[in-house]
Amino acid sequence: MLRVSILILFLSFYYPSIGQQHPLSFFTKNELVEIKSGIKKYPLLSSSFAEIKSQVDRYVGKEVDVPFPKDPAGGYTHDKHKSNYMLMFNSGILYNITGDARYALLVKNMLLKYAALNPGLKNHPQATSAFPGHIFWQALNDANWLVYAGMAYDMVYENLSTNDRAIIEKGAFKPEVDFFTKDLKDWFDLLHNHSVWACAGVGIVGLASNNKDYVDMALYGVNKDGKRGFIAQMDSLFSPDGYYTEGPYYLRYAILPYMLFANALNNVKPELKVFDHRDRILQKALFTCLQQTNLNGAFFPLNDALKEKDYTTNELVTAIGIANKAYGVDNALLTVARKQNRVILNKGGVLTAMAIATSKNIPDYFPYKSIESTDGVKGERGGVSVMRLGAGQDLTSLVFKYASQGLSHGHFDRLNINLFDKGNEVLSDYGSVRFIGIEQKFGGRYLPENNLYAAQTIAHNTLVVDERSHFGANPAFGEKSNPEKLFSDYGNPSLKVMMAKEAGAYPNVDMQRSVYLIALPTGEKMVADFFNVHSGEMHQYDFPFQYSGQMISASFPYQSFINGQQPLGKANGYQFIWKEGAATIKENLAQLTFLNNRTYYTISTWIKDSAEVFFGRTGANDPNFNLRHEPSYILRKRGDNELFLNVIEIHGKIDPVNEFSLDAYPNLKKINVLQHDDNYSVAECGIGDKILLIAQCNKNFNKNVVHHFKNATYDITWSGPYVVMYDGKKI
Amino acid sequence: MLRVSILILFLSFYYPSIGQQHPLSFFTKNELVEIKSGIKKYPLLSSSFAEIKSQVDRYVGKEVDVPFPKDPAGGYTHDKHKSNYMLMFNSGILYNITGDARYALLVKNMLLKYAALNPGLKNHPQATSAFPGHIFWQALNDANWLVYAGMAYDMVYENLSTNDRAIIEKGAFKPEVDFFTKDLKDWFDLLHNHSVWACAGVGIVGLASNNKDYVDMALYGVNKDGKRGFIAQMDSLFSPDGYYTEGPYYLRYAILPYMLFANALNNVKPELKVFDHRDRILQKALFTCLQQTNLNGAFFPLNDALKEKDYTTNELVTAIGIANKAYGVDNALLTVARKQNRVILNKGGVLTAMAIATSKNIPDYFPYKSIESTDGVKGERGGVSVMRLGAGQDLTSLVFKYASQGLSHGHFDRLNINLFDKGNEVLSDYGSVRFIGIEQKFGGRYLPENNLYAAQTIAHNTLVVDERSHFGANPAFGEKSNPEKLFSDYGNPSLKVMMAKEAGAYPNVDMQRSVYLIALPTGEKMVADFFNVHSGEMHQYDFPFQYSGQMISASFPYQSFINGQQPLGKANGYQFIWKEGAATIKENLAQLTFLNNRTYYTISTWIKDSAEVFFGRTGANDPNFNLRHEPSYILRKRGDNELFLNVIEIHGKIDPVNEFSLDAYPNLKKINVLQHDDNYSVAECGIGDKILLIAQCNKNFNKNVVHHFKNATYDITWSGPYVVMYDGKKI
Repeated sequence: MLRVSILILFLSFYYPSIGQQHPLSFFTKNELVEIKSGIKKYPLLSSSFAEIKSQVDRYVGKEVDVPFPKDPAGGYTHDKHKSNYMLMFNSGILYNITGDARYALLVKNMLLKYAALNPGLKNHPQATSAFPGHIFWQALNDANWLVYAGMAYDMVYENLSTNDRAIIEKGAFKPEVDFFTKDLKDWFDLLHNHSVWACAGVGIVGLASNNKDYVDMALYGVNKDGKRGFIAQMDSLFSPDGYYTEGPYYLRYAILPYMLFANALNNVKPELKVFDHRDRILQKALFTCLQQTNLNGAFFPLNDALKEKDYTTNELVTAIGIANKAYGVDNALLTVARKQNRVILNKGGVLTAMAIATSKNIPDYFPYKSIESTDGVKGERGGVSVMRLGAGQDLTSLVFKYASQGLSHGHFDRLNINLFDKGNEVLSDYGSVRFIGIEQKFGGRYLPENNLYAAQTIAHNTLVVDERSHFGANPAFGEKSNPEKLFSDYGNPSLKVMMAKEAGAYPNVDMQRSVYLIALPTGEKMVADFFNVHSGEMHQYDFPFQYSGQMISASFPYQSFINGQQPLGKANGYQFIWKEGAATIKENLAQLTFLNNRTYYTISTWIKDSAEVFFGRTGANDPNFNLRHEPSYILRKRGDNELFLNVIEIHGKIDPVNEFSLDAYPNLKKINVLQHDDNYSVAECGIGDKILLIAQCNKNFNKNVVHHFKNATYDITWSGPYVVMYDGKKI
Repeated sequence: MLRVSILILFLSFYYPSIGQQHPLSFFTKNELVEIKSGIKKYPLLSSSFAEIKSQVDRYVGKEVDVPFPKDPAGGYTHDKHKSNYMLMFNSGILYNITGDARYALLVKNMLLKYAALNPGLKNHPQATSAFPGHIFWQALNDANWLVYAGMAYDMVYENLSTNDRAIIEKGAFKPEVDFFTKDLKDWFDLLHNHSVWACAGVGIVGLASNNKDYVDMALYGVNKDGKRGFIAQMDSLFSPDGYYTEGPYYLRYAILPYMLFANALNNVKPELKVFDHRDRILQKALFTCLQQTNLNGAFFPLNDALKEKDYTTNELVTAIGIANKAYGVDNALLTVARKQNRVILNKGGVLTAMAIATSKNIPDYFPYKSIESTDGVKGERGGVSVMRLGAGQDLTSLVFKYASQGLSHGHFDRLNINLFDKGNEVLSDYGSVRFIGIEQKFGGRYLPENNLYAAQTIAHNTLVVDERSHFGANPAFGEKSNPEKLFSDYGNPSLKVMMAKEAGAYPNVDMQRSVYLIALPTGEKMVADFFNVHSGEMHQYDFPFQYSGQMISASFPYQSFINGQQPLGKANGYQFIWKEGAATIKENLAQLTFLNNRTYYTISTWIKDSAEVFFGRTGANDPNFNLRHEPSYILRKRGDNELFLNVIEIHGKIDPVNEFSLDAYPNLKKINVLQHDDNYSVAECGIGDKILLIAQCNKNFNKNVVHHFKNATYDITWSGPYVVMYDGKKI
């Protein structure tokens, strides 16, 4: 009786397949021919195939556990279900490549187990998320499952009996699809990366089971009006140049369902031209994501981000394979693919492996360049600039973030800068406080210190007013406004300039930052950083440098709290910083030199009248040892209108193996501010026996307007918002 | 007039050359033929030649500065003189290989400058050493100069006029030789690595200038009686198996003058058979040094040691080249040479580069094995054991140090252990507090915190009694006695056992440690560590684990000093450790899990009655930011006779890129001590649902004596000092 009623129910929404051959989602029958012959020819394809085969073969012919969901991330049932969907997906691939029915049987048996399990599931017992899952603690992981299980189903579809298909579609998939599109309708219809996964999952299951209802909901939202769903997500989650508002770490994650679903859609519905959509937005997103990585492949840690993640992650292996198939093989992607050292098992992987096997011109480094990414659907919400100088291992990257809030994973870091040099993070961003996959650490979820410390302004390299974070650390307030780009100039091979302002982070406080990444004719690289703050009232201004490295020396005496130490403050992230040292500086110049790997860096600070400085280190108020213990150097002034002017020199090197140290001292000897008012800031820096002079406009950013500066020593005329001169000559 | 008097003085000790052709020190005319043809054939020889050439060519034909000595290490004059002697040496090599007289001219001009400078030098203004230098702050660096300048002189000897030779020998060398052998006679005659450099320098200059007096003093001491000098240094600074009492970091340094002088001696006086001396002691020393490295090539940080130093250092490039020439090419050395990626430019380098170019069987890893090195000239002063399990990247190395004090660089760490796993330091040794080559950090010298913290017992993984270091941290007391090896067994492929005792570190306190490095049949590796302490009086016993990694979880509640923290103690190194947490444990078992790179480690401690534990972190009382901030976990008990029984499990792994975590929890569930008295310690550990049983003799270490243990559960008979059983079967 039960079986009959299931079948009746099932037939009510089942559309028979009209000629579309399976497989159709991850690869097609045509691609399979190329894959089979490619495995014999291209080493990277062979090894990728062998790797998947050795993983799957351990399970073939064995009973595979599909446990009742119980554990949080990192726990047994979580990890089992996670490995199960990859196992089904990979076994489906192997079935198609080898024709060995045991692989299909593995997928079938497991899907039948899920068909038995899923209909009875309620919210997961560990569901602490606002969007709970059934199989996992959060719906997002259920959506991951649906994407891969859907592709696995498609890949064994032709091996299944009609009856098994019905049982699986009804038992394994329908409860999940209904859960998403009914119980979690609002979540499914969000324009957010989690919902991209949900749409991809429902859409792929829809394509695999020829369920137009599913496909239409996935493409156009539950109401099918196009205001929501996958196409709207392509239109709304990226800026026109492919920046994703949560930052590159999450773009890495978000791009996977985009690529997988787009690949499947392009197989079945090429007329949608999904890869061309919005002027190839998926290709732009992939390249933007890769440009926003460090030399070692790690994503710049903007917003919540785990620094261990780099571009060898599975998401980018998949994205690069699909991009090479959709857009043609790209040499820059081959550099990354070679470091990934594996490819996906579809035509994209064949093309990638073939190119790597046959090309002699694959560059050693991804072609990093200075780039400016806007934020916002129309590029109207600020952006992120990466200013770069140098080549190969000697690349210097200065990241300037003036983007919008970045949704729930955003940090309160308006006008933040990060400095990377020679593959090392020098002026750092904490990233996120999370031990992903480690059950003992709150089930691998974000830890409380993530929002309490890592997201707060003091954890960054930008101004903190009155020991409070931007927008009072309220994401909703942060979402309401965004910084404004004022000017940038990337045209000079020895100089990159970027100016932006933020007026909303604090009431009645305007912040404006201009950064100059400079290569002197001597070869030395440095950053000059002008940070203007304006307010009608007096405030405490804290200007932190979160640096990464070993403190070498300071140019000023300081008090050390060597026999007992207290936190630097009580709230807004300050409570997590031990106060290790403090000084009051009345000199005009304060210099801190530190060593990061084998290079010296010196922060030289111009000080008007006097300032306090603090040496801090994270680790206070951390009873569960969740924080890394990292140093900071914090300038503090009371004032209303203030200029924070700092020069960060990259100098010298040390070779501890051969015991050589070169240029351990900074070359900067003095900083004088010659003019500073609403209209202009003009400063001269003594670099060795030469003068570096920087004059900038603080109000007029027109490229063509001509300006003058004159005093007893100088008489300078320039056009546009800035001029940088070294030894009397324009850089 | 002056010139005449110099010549007269000079002739009084000049012996004319009797047929010996130059060059003769670093290489001979015969070797040069092979080098010249080898450069065309072997890539590593070509690139090594090209590297030297590009370094030297920057200076050829230019005026090179020979400044009046002024600066400490890391300062300009120090670094200049240091680069000068390498420049002369390399330029001498290039002259011989290329025949280009400009290279000889560079050497001549520089030696003439030194001939003008050296006679007027007094003690260096920065000389804080008991053995001051003239050109450098310490005599050791002057000896380095003499070694390389001597070889450089030999290499251009035939290009020089008789007059120039006389000026150089008289002006550049004689003041240094006289300074060493007269002013610093006691130092020159020490049996110490610095004096090896001095003897090598005087000896090489003697060979180069055919000065028998110099050569004889170098070989046999200033008094030429053989009680001192180079031969005595070969006899007295190594144990019979090649261990050097200061440890591998200093052996790395000491071996260079041994090899360079031996190489020159063997060219000129092959009848001395210096490489065969003492059963090939130099070869043994080299292999012992290499066995005492971590997978990444870094020397085990026994005693004062900089952890950045690895076997790619110039000293070992030279030593390996010379060893391959003297003893024949060794495959194990080729593994290291390939990682060094350069060779010396003499026949040793030719042989090495040729073998690397032509051999197909160079292993990826140095053939690490379990080794036992005795300490003391007759092997009578304890030793260092390295117990190893696993292969390739999965190598686990447990270092057990029961050596003598190790001279002035020795640490107070009797019965210390260090654990290395997969190339990572897991139970760590601080190494030394020094920023070599960095002038701002006390001229690159050892910092005060080196003796005050790094050398103290609490900085290690061995017992501290009453918060005082072994021997009251007095090196002279430490030198008077040494630990005693009791027993070792390396014969079992799944189990390495080592037992030693120390009776002199504290008055009336006997310490005995037995460590078991075990590979279970499941593949899991672990260390079982029995530390017995006996005293007639009550003491405070601190048992520290200096671990390296991220704390993941503790099995017990603890108090956290999150809002203010104080140092753990007031003296003997304790003042440098912040007290981050504390607990009193009344359970039978305390477990601490931490993550090091991608592997989990759990320390499981058996607790009788109760114990205190502390979480510490270095960095207190460190006003100049000289210390790294590293965690420790310290067990504390009051008692007289106590057993510290700990099991350190290596378990699981995490992949943060692919977000998988496996076996994050320890498998050890319980520890019961079934018997513990003067004769036996017997303990059972529950590992999963299996039992690991370890029974050991505490007094009788005879391999053949039969022992019994019987209780309600067990009835065991074994022979020798221990038995380890897992799941009822002997391992």
